[in-house]
Amino acid sequence: MTPTNSVAEVLERARALTTPPMRDAVERLAPGIRDVVSYHLGWTDADGNPAAVKGGKGIRAALPVLSAEATWADAEVGAVGGVAVELVHNFSLIHDDLMDGDMERRHRPTVWALWGPAVALIAGDALSTLATEVLLGSANPAGPAAARVLGEATAEMIAGQALDLAFEKRQSVSVEECMAMSTAKTGALLGCAASIGAVLAGAPTTTVHALRDYGRHLGVAFQAVDDLLGIWGDPATTGKPAGNDIRQRKKSMPIVAALAAGDDEANELRALLFEQSPERAKPKAHGLGVGVPNWAPPPAKALTAEEVARATWLVEACGGREWTAARAKAHLDAGLGSLERARLSAVPRRELADLAVYAVERES
Amino acid sequence: MTPTNSVAEVLERARALTTPPMRDAVERLAPGIRDVVSYHLGWTDADGNPAAVKGGKGIRAALPVLSAEATWADAEVGAVGGVAVELVHNFSLIHDDLMDGDMERRHRPTVWALWGPAVALIAGDALSTLATEVLLGSANPAGPAAARVLGEATAEMIAGQALDLAFEKRQSVSVEECMAMSTAKTGALLGCAASIGAVLAGAPTTTVHALRDYGRHLGVAFQAVDDLLGIWGDPATTGKPAGNDIRQRKKSMPIVAALAAGDDEANELRALLFEQSPERAKPKAHGLGVGVPNWAPPPAKALTAEEVARATWLVEACGGREWTAARAKAHLDAGLGSLERARLSAVPRRELADLAVYAVERES
Repeated sequence: MTPTNSVAEVLERARALTTPPMRDAVERLAPGIRDVVSYHLGWTDADGNPAAVKGGKGIRAALPVLSAEATWADAEVGAVGGVAVELVHNFSLIHDDLMDGDMERRHRPTVWALWGPAVALIAGDALSTLATEVLLGSANPAGPAAARVLGEATAEMIAGQALDLAFEKRQSVSVEECMAMSTAKTGALLGCAASIGAVLAGAPTTTVHALRDYGRHLGVAFQAVDDLLGIWGDPATTGKPAGNDIRQRKKSMPIVAALAAGDDEANELRALLFEQSPERAKPKAHGLGVGVPNWAPPPAKALTAEEVARATWLVEACGGREWTAARAKAHLDAGLGSLERARLSAVPRRELADLAVYAVERES
Repeated sequence: MTPTNSVAEVLERARALTTPPMRDAVERLAPGIRDVVSYHLGWTDADGNPAAVKGGKGIRAALPVLSAEATWADAEVGAVGGVAVELVHNFSLIHDDLMDGDMERRHRPTVWALWGPAVALIAGDALSTLATEVLLGSANPAGPAAARVLGEATAEMIAGQALDLAFEKRQSVSVEECMAMSTAKTGALLGCAASIGAVLAGAPTTTVHALRDYGRHLGVAFQAVDDLLGIWGDPATTGKPAGNDIRQRKKSMPIVAALAAGDDEANELRALLFEQSPERAKPKAHGLGVGVPNWAPPPAKALTAEEVARATWLVEACGGREWTAARAKAHLDAGLGSLERARLSAVPRRELADLAVYAVERES
């Protein structure tokens, strides 16, 4: 059996393959936008001086490379897909930080916090358009098919963000709704990342779909882990304050699952997190915000440290932590199963499996 | 000679051809986003009840239809291009209203004013993605080529918006910079609209480029007229307050041209409009907005009615009105010249020319 590369080697190799075309793509942006994007990607500091800030884990750039290799194509064939998926991912990060009012990402000020909301809006718009241009401008005759797959995934991701936003204004969200939102918001783009290399390689539809299913399951598992880290993660490794999602009253998987327990502790949790901010519960969506040219969400009384600790305990007591960890495991297994059933080249298949395990076992 | 249809008939026919596929496209959006977009397009009221609000003039939907016919294809061939261009245009309107803090468009509250900034952000993102999906999903084998042309135009439009935003923070903008910004912000998408039908029809590159040049010139002329109406337009027909662009201190063509006169009156105009808001002149772009989660631009003292009247008079006295009208005329003529030189079917060629004259002679 050929030994697989370690996950670190796989990520590093994909990064080496995708960084030059990623830089070429960003070069095509207008200067003012390019500077902002270079900062966001960790290539420069806020003054435009070169920097080498640790960026994301690079899973979204690695999946397309492995997905091309898994269907017996050269890694290079998948690289353009990695660039396109990374561009869409970063468009969504820049717009998400703006929507959520998040001032920091990876220990640095976010784009909107540095340059203002309008610049963040434009930078995200530019990356969204650039992603499609990269695929349509590639010499690969499957470029348009890949652009279509990416467009569908992007549309689903945006629909997921819309659901997430709608949930914020609602008093209750079911576990099923929460999972559907996570599938759309995170699963769609990872499903695309895991299959776009195969599309670019001209692989058969059944193989493309199996890889997509692997990626979608991986995405949901990934989101479940994110949601766990959002409450129990170590601030030193996540870069976010402890109990961040509790403070922000996010309707994340552990919290929604805990609320669904329906017992006294669940009711206490609901009262603590969602019954102190009546302005969020107005029945008419468009009653919100009229005449208020203000980006920030309606103010909610900040939770005290004691309330955060109590809510964290309640989520665990109601089974929210256990349930979410079980979901992560189940979706990881389903993704690995989909990978096993597909007709794929052995080494990249195992590297895809290892990457999934790594993504779910991570601690930041 | 076959008589051409009147401009009203041309617009109406294009509207009839593009509205059903436009509705089909909007149907593909997630429900929450679809409702917002339907409202923005004037199809429904804010509560989702059917409405028939007068939308835009429909020039961007008509140009692709005529551009297909001008290259001897059926009007239907261009319709999908009309839908895609309209989707991009409306994405830019929704995001522009948000960036500019505009509360009304066509006498109705804007999307962000009704539903808040995050919803407007998401709705615009969804339309941007949908535009490409419509072209890549069409049965026309030239769909990918059309998507590429649209992507390039969208990227240029976004770069123009970035320039526009950067100009707001600067004390002075040259006439050349102002024209380059207008070419990017308005010319690029109209150049695409005027040529995408020919791309979909598989027309030769020289013809596509001639139509694109016609559209780009038309776009600049259109923007010049918009800038004139922004100061001297009749509020009853434009739907904007009198002297709107003076009040908003926009660096529009008439104002930039007037400032370039360099005489005492130009200096008085500069002092009146741009030296009363020192917070806009901070040298470091990223010094703005840090820690201020507020969408609205930095406050500037509102101009009194007398100041608006005086500034309006100064812009005209410095030749800004005359210069801008001359630019509109020159770009209209250049566009018509480009149309004349191309190898095109006679009737749609004349309809394209009539449409350009109409777009430049409009009063709202």
